Amino acid sequence: MNKKRNVYLNMKTLEEAREVLDRSFSLSDALETETVAVPDAVGRILAAPVSAIISAPHFNAAAMDGIAVKAEVTFGASQADPKKLIINQDAFYVNTGHVMPAETDSVIMIEQVNALDDKQVEIEAPVFPWQNVRKIGEDIVATEMLFPQNHRITPYCVGALLAGGIFSVPVRSKPNILIIPTGSEIVDWRKVDSKSLKPGLVLETNSFVLGTLAESCGAAFRRHEILTDDLEKIQQSVADAVEQDYQIILILGGSSAGSEDYAKDVILNTGEVLVHGVTIMPGKPVVIGRVKTKPVLGIPGYPVSAIIAFEQFVRPLISRMLGQPELAAATVDVTPTRKIASKLGVEEFVRVKLGKVSDRVVATPLPRGAGSITSLTEADGVIRIPNHK
Amino acid sequence: MNKKRNVYLNMKTLEEAREVLDRSFSLSDALETETVAVPDAVGRILAAPVSAIISAPHFNAAAMDGIAVKAEVTFGASQADPKKLIINQDAFYVNTGHVMPAETDSVIMIEQVNALDDKQVEIEAPVFPWQNVRKIGEDIVATEMLFPQNHRITPYCVGALLAGGIFSVPVRSKPNILIIPTGSEIVDWRKVDSKSLKPGLVLETNSFVLGTLAESCGAAFRRHEILTDDLEKIQQSVADAVEQDYQIILILGGSSAGSEDYAKDVILNTGEVLVHGVTIMPGKPVVIGRVKTKPVLGIPGYPVSAIIAFEQFVRPLISRMLGQPELAAATVDVTPTRKIASKLGVEEFVRVKLGKVSDRVVATPLPRGAGSITSLTEADGVIRIPNHK
Repeated sequence: MNKKRNVYLNMKTLEEAREVLDRSFSLSDALETETVAVPDAVGRILAAPVSAIISAPHFNAAAMDGIAVKAEVTFGASQADPKKLIINQDAFYVNTGHVMPAETDSVIMIEQVNALDDKQVEIEAPVFPWQNVRKIGEDIVATEMLFPQNHRITPYCVGALLAGGIFSVPVRSKPNILIIPTGSEIVDWRKVDSKSLKPGLVLETNSFVLGTLAESCGAAFRRHEILTDDLEKIQQSVADAVEQDYQIILILGGSSAGSEDYAKDVILNTGEVLVHGVTIMPGKPVVIGRVKTKPVLGIPGYPVSAIIAFEQFVRPLISRMLGQPELAAATVDVTPTRKIASKLGVEEFVRVKLGKVSDRVVATPLPRGAGSITSLTEADGVIRIPNHK
Repeated sequence: MNKKRNVYLNMKTLEEAREVLDRSFSLSDALETETVAVPDAVGRILAAPVSAIISAPHFNAAAMDGIAVKAEVTFGASQADPKKLIINQDAFYVNTGHVMPAETDSVIMIEQVNALDDKQVEIEAPVFPWQNVRKIGEDIVATEMLFPQNHRITPYCVGALLAGGIFSVPVRSKPNILIIPTGSEIVDWRKVDSKSLKPGLVLETNSFVLGTLAESCGAAFRRHEILTDDLEKIQQSVADAVEQDYQIILILGGSSAGSEDYAKDVILNTGEVLVHGVTIMPGKPVVIGRVKTKPVLGIPGYPVSAIIAFEQFVRPLISRMLGQPELAAATVDVTPTRKIASKLGVEEFVRVKLGKVSDRVVATPLPRGAGSITSLTEADGVIRIPNHK
């Protein structure tokens, strides 16, 4: 065998690799700020705190249908001794939401009002001041901060923002991820007939999986056309991309140590390799690099390895750019349905199906191969077997 | 007071109202099927089961870089008694992913191959058949069902579908929701300056909150222009909408029993009122109607009431159309930080903030008013106080 083989020079544990990732990139200013209409901002992240411009309500408003009165004129009213009120003098008909007439401070519910004629009504109980009235600023006071920086806008927030007179908000622009699929054997599904796919050719799927995962993290992605295993070409694409508006660049495939695995050399020739190889399974052949301050990652080609590399290294980068905390996965105590042999010095992610046996949760391991995408679509969870050395 | 007042004729409990909702609409065929490219189908719901067209892998593939051999030629190899293999006769150099050469069934890792010269190599250990080979169909077998009807497509599914040769999928079209904001006092934020909003006018926020909530359930929404409290006009809009491609119609505001609350009459005049008034707080003044088989709901105008009515009655309709189960909210046992007085005969939704005191979770009630949208944006959860009669 004449071709040169790469080697993993200094494999890192997941913890070490994450530590390198965390300290090697200054990401707090990676994204621009853009202004978006509030109803279109759901899912976006505030780039600055937002304060209300108007109060909600912005006037004293009837909270019931009935008559608006000054509470003190009702004091002493009882069934035995009802009080008469003159319409448009002591009492004013109002519907929910109406402006409270001047000098009034409370509303008597229409059901408790006894209309004697067009001009006067009788009441049998008093009200207290501000009863059945929504006062100015009861929900939101003008100038109060509605949401802090880095808050993620929900549909509920849309209501609070619009009610507070805020019609557009400054949000962080979405991180742009460029995904470059590489490999002489991979083909674009749009260019083949699946029924006559030749042996040796493999449908390129990872760019779409990682791209849609990136979207689910609040990022946007562009897919580069597939590049063959050609060092020069891949290198040129990376060099071009770092000059453009991409915050993260992913080279898919060729991240291992084979004779045609170019991801490491591409990064070495355009910037610096920070990590090559992480002691996780699947996902070992990952490359973490930096080219002109930007993260450029070599992602393994096996579908499960690619996804684990994304979850462990790309998702945290996106979260940091967006000022979002990393959410810990929900955990549950399980009993494996069979013994799971582990590999010394490697942290393994075993996909499992969960079931319930009386009140225990049991976990059945799914196929462990890195090529088994169905082990992820069928999984209810992942058992992480730590890296005991 | 001269104006006619409506009355709630027959208030229903939440359970009764849900029961009416569940049996009054046949929704399984409400939606058309459309065909969508797989990468664009994330979040969509399969309208039919989908089966793989090709196997993955679709050929026997090397799973390691190394030499492909017929396992039996390696039997007996040991450190003491290494075996020589002739390149391109007994052994063939392969990289991960390559097609296995004819007659070979296993791969010896390159690290375990001792190249003697260009023509022959030596090995010191045997392999067993299919070792380091990804066999045809190891992950996906052509014709196997990948996902059943009503499955929601995730980014992982995109990988499995494309790998199985499926490039587009039949999905349920999104339910179209028409939202009609009504009320003579409400104004469109796009038509006012928030700093000079007149007393009595209220910014219309609910259509955007419910619309974006509907989107988060997998539906699409169109917002009708604001209609004043004009029975004829609202009626006409509803009559027009049921003839169009809307699956659900929401009339926002005017669902109570006030003199200018027209939602009930609108539905009564165009179809039938199934429920008017539900013993929940907030959210009591809800109208559930049916116009030409379509659900038409009157939604209360207070922001929290509107959201609770949406969650209790609109979300279940959308889920049923999409063939999705209703997901139960996550629950936790809490200790309220103060006594919560409850109202007999009413089921209350008290928004609370959660905190931790030693190992108890404590819940502090937020403002209970139906107008307090911030009670929802600040809430970590909701305490449901049951309807004890």
